[in-house]
Amino acid sequence: MTSQRLRLGFAGLGMAAGRLIPEIARLPYIQLTAAADLRAHALERFREEFKAEVYNSVEEMCESPNVDAVYVATPHEFHARYSIAALQKRKHVIVEKPMAISIDEARAMNAAAEENGVKLMSGHTHSFDPPIRKMREIIKSGALGRLLMISTTYYKDHIYRPFPDHDIKMSRGVVLNQGPHQIDIVRLLGGGMVKSVRAMAAIGDPSRPGEGHYACYLEFEDSVPANLVYSGYAYFDTGELTWGIGEGGEQKDPERHVKARKFFKSLGSGSDRAKQLESRLEEWRYGGSKPGAWAGGDSGPRKQHQPFFGLTVVTCEKGDLRQSPDGLFIYDEDGKREIHIPKGIDAREAELQEFYEGIVNDRPIFHDGRWGQATLEVCLAILQSAAERQEVTLSHQVPVPNVS
Amino acid sequence: MTSQRLRLGFAGLGMAAGRLIPEIARLPYIQLTAAADLRAHALERFREEFKAEVYNSVEEMCESPNVDAVYVATPHEFHARYSIAALQKRKHVIVEKPMAISIDEARAMNAAAEENGVKLMSGHTHSFDPPIRKMREIIKSGALGRLLMISTTYYKDHIYRPFPDHDIKMSRGVVLNQGPHQIDIVRLLGGGMVKSVRAMAAIGDPSRPGEGHYACYLEFEDSVPANLVYSGYAYFDTGELTWGIGEGGEQKDPERHVKARKFFKSLGSGSDRAKQLESRLEEWRYGGSKPGAWAGGDSGPRKQHQPFFGLTVVTCEKGDLRQSPDGLFIYDEDGKREIHIPKGIDAREAELQEFYEGIVNDRPIFHDGRWGQATLEVCLAILQSAAERQEVTLSHQVPVPNVS
Repeated sequence: MTSQRLRLGFAGLGMAAGRLIPEIARLPYIQLTAAADLRAHALERFREEFKAEVYNSVEEMCESPNVDAVYVATPHEFHARYSIAALQKRKHVIVEKPMAISIDEARAMNAAAEENGVKLMSGHTHSFDPPIRKMREIIKSGALGRLLMISTTYYKDHIYRPFPDHDIKMSRGVVLNQGPHQIDIVRLLGGGMVKSVRAMAAIGDPSRPGEGHYACYLEFEDSVPANLVYSGYAYFDTGELTWGIGEGGEQKDPERHVKARKFFKSLGSGSDRAKQLESRLEEWRYGGSKPGAWAGGDSGPRKQHQPFFGLTVVTCEKGDLRQSPDGLFIYDEDGKREIHIPKGIDAREAELQEFYEGIVNDRPIFHDGRWGQATLEVCLAILQSAAERQEVTLSHQVPVPNVS
Repeated sequence: MTSQRLRLGFAGLGMAAGRLIPEIARLPYIQLTAAADLRAHALERFREEFKAEVYNSVEEMCESPNVDAVYVATPHEFHARYSIAALQKRKHVIVEKPMAISIDEARAMNAAAEENGVKLMSGHTHSFDPPIRKMREIIKSGALGRLLMISTTYYKDHIYRPFPDHDIKMSRGVVLNQGPHQIDIVRLLGGGMVKSVRAMAAIGDPSRPGEGHYACYLEFEDSVPANLVYSGYAYFDTGELTWGIGEGGEQKDPERHVKARKFFKSLGSGSDRAKQLESRLEEWRYGGSKPGAWAGGDSGPRKQHQPFFGLTVVTCEKGDLRQSPDGLFIYDEDGKREIHIPKGIDAREAELQEFYEGIVNDRPIFHDGRWGQATLEVCLAILQSAAERQEVTLSHQVPVPNVS
């Protein structure tokens, strides 16, 4: 670190970057100093916008002395390769979910971080959401007695979001892409140490080459069970059970699922669809004409309420918890009451702040590479359990760190 | 059968009888001809009300030539013994859930029915509810493509309903008492043939000697998964997600859970509670001062809407299903639409009609003893999986019969 501002290089100027870069550019403690991509016009735009260095390869970018840390936002299958390239050059790394697509990759990433004395953070998930963190705080306080059970369900439109088939395939549909959100929520609430997983995941729409749903039972070491249900087929919308509020805290369009499916259908099929989609995607990427825009995505202004990643109900000895529109409902001996939770900073901003504090002030990082590896292990166990039709015992779990 | 009216003997004039007998007395095709109980005043009342025979033992009642069939509504641990006593005297039997408390008992009951050429029916569960039957019909029709996944959750007040501790203990809390409802629903929707179960159930309130909650993953032979969550601790009420509608189709009192807990608390603890409870129970039993009344029970007139045994969401290839207040919501390619379902006859009446038709017209009985045994096997597998902390493979499953 040569300055108190963290000098960040961006690996991949795709759709994620299209959304993220404007948010990151606003943060006073981060300076965007470099980017790597294959799209010349995106690099040119980045160079102009941030007076920054641009590269055709992540490896080259990692040679730069003007980069302290790298944000890896490439396609999933390159997360491990580029993270390791950066870590080996002693750059700190924040990597989008899923941190990798195999446990071996995740282990190599963690080893590289440890060998080189730099930080590895597995990126944004909805366990950063203030209501989920508050639930964890209440569980941990013991005010409601022992934790007994967790249930979380989410029915949304993931499979018809405009991801190319290749991405759907690489992320095993919803399992590696959406699983990390739901599993991180459950692991945070349950303390982290999952003992075993029994699950089914399958491809429900054969026109998309990835698993569109899963049902998962997992059990923590201390025998607390959690049931997880996820469907990405855009039929029923869990928003109907959560005051129409979506995962950005936005008021969802009740027609959102139908629209997502119609949009997807309008793309045709096969190579037609691939071409249509590629031209849309190019608009939405960093450097495109509508960076960060996203058909079938959030339908209203974000942060009107607290974010809802589906419906989560926590059962404790002396009471239950679930989210209210702007906080939590606590059900206990005296009945139902609501606590309001300040919106605070955005989950994405919280993530970057934690990354910054971890690097500059050496504070512990909550979602570090070991945490991410443990969550990835659960995702992969869902796939393994589905394939083998039996329970899978885990061996890479870590507890929730003692970080507020 | 010596007449077209089915001559029914009642084994056990307890709380169930207090609720059931007035309903059964209204049915023109059933004649209440006998009862057995230990409470002299209840027998006297029954004798007067129905000009019927009364007995101090079920075995004696089963000797009567004026009894064609026996309704077994005794404490759970006597279901097998009295059912077998009746079956061996060639009486048809309808037995309340849980049909037995072990698989060996259930097998002996089925063997007795088959050896004696009489019908055995495992009694009322919420899979008889019209919306659940309609869901099954839609799944089976193939209109929504293959079934992919089932999720069902229910948070209610079972543990604080006025059951004596002994009953809670014998039914393993909610598992054998409430499990049959939820499991029957899931087995009906999924086709019946459960391959394996992974679950946790535990005693969350040590002041009650039975399991108050469970989380269960089960997988059908055809690899369709189902997640089941049940909590009986009277905190969060699933009614909040189902328009405040309860399992009798009644509009629930939002304070019902708090009231159930307060009532229970008012009973004191230990032998005080047992005494208090016994005097209340005596009021609610057949022959008591308020037969069929039930503190903390249904809080409004029944059948205002369709019954809701919690929240069930069915995921198919081409759409999802869940209950609407008076029917079903179907979510498919075109969006969300509602179909209205006639209330039809009560689930309990449907059960007795099926029993009658099975006996008098030899029509197949849907919830026969084999079906009940298969559901019991799942309940027991929940307990076994929880105790052993591993998956349990099943061997007594039967498919949904081809009965409308």
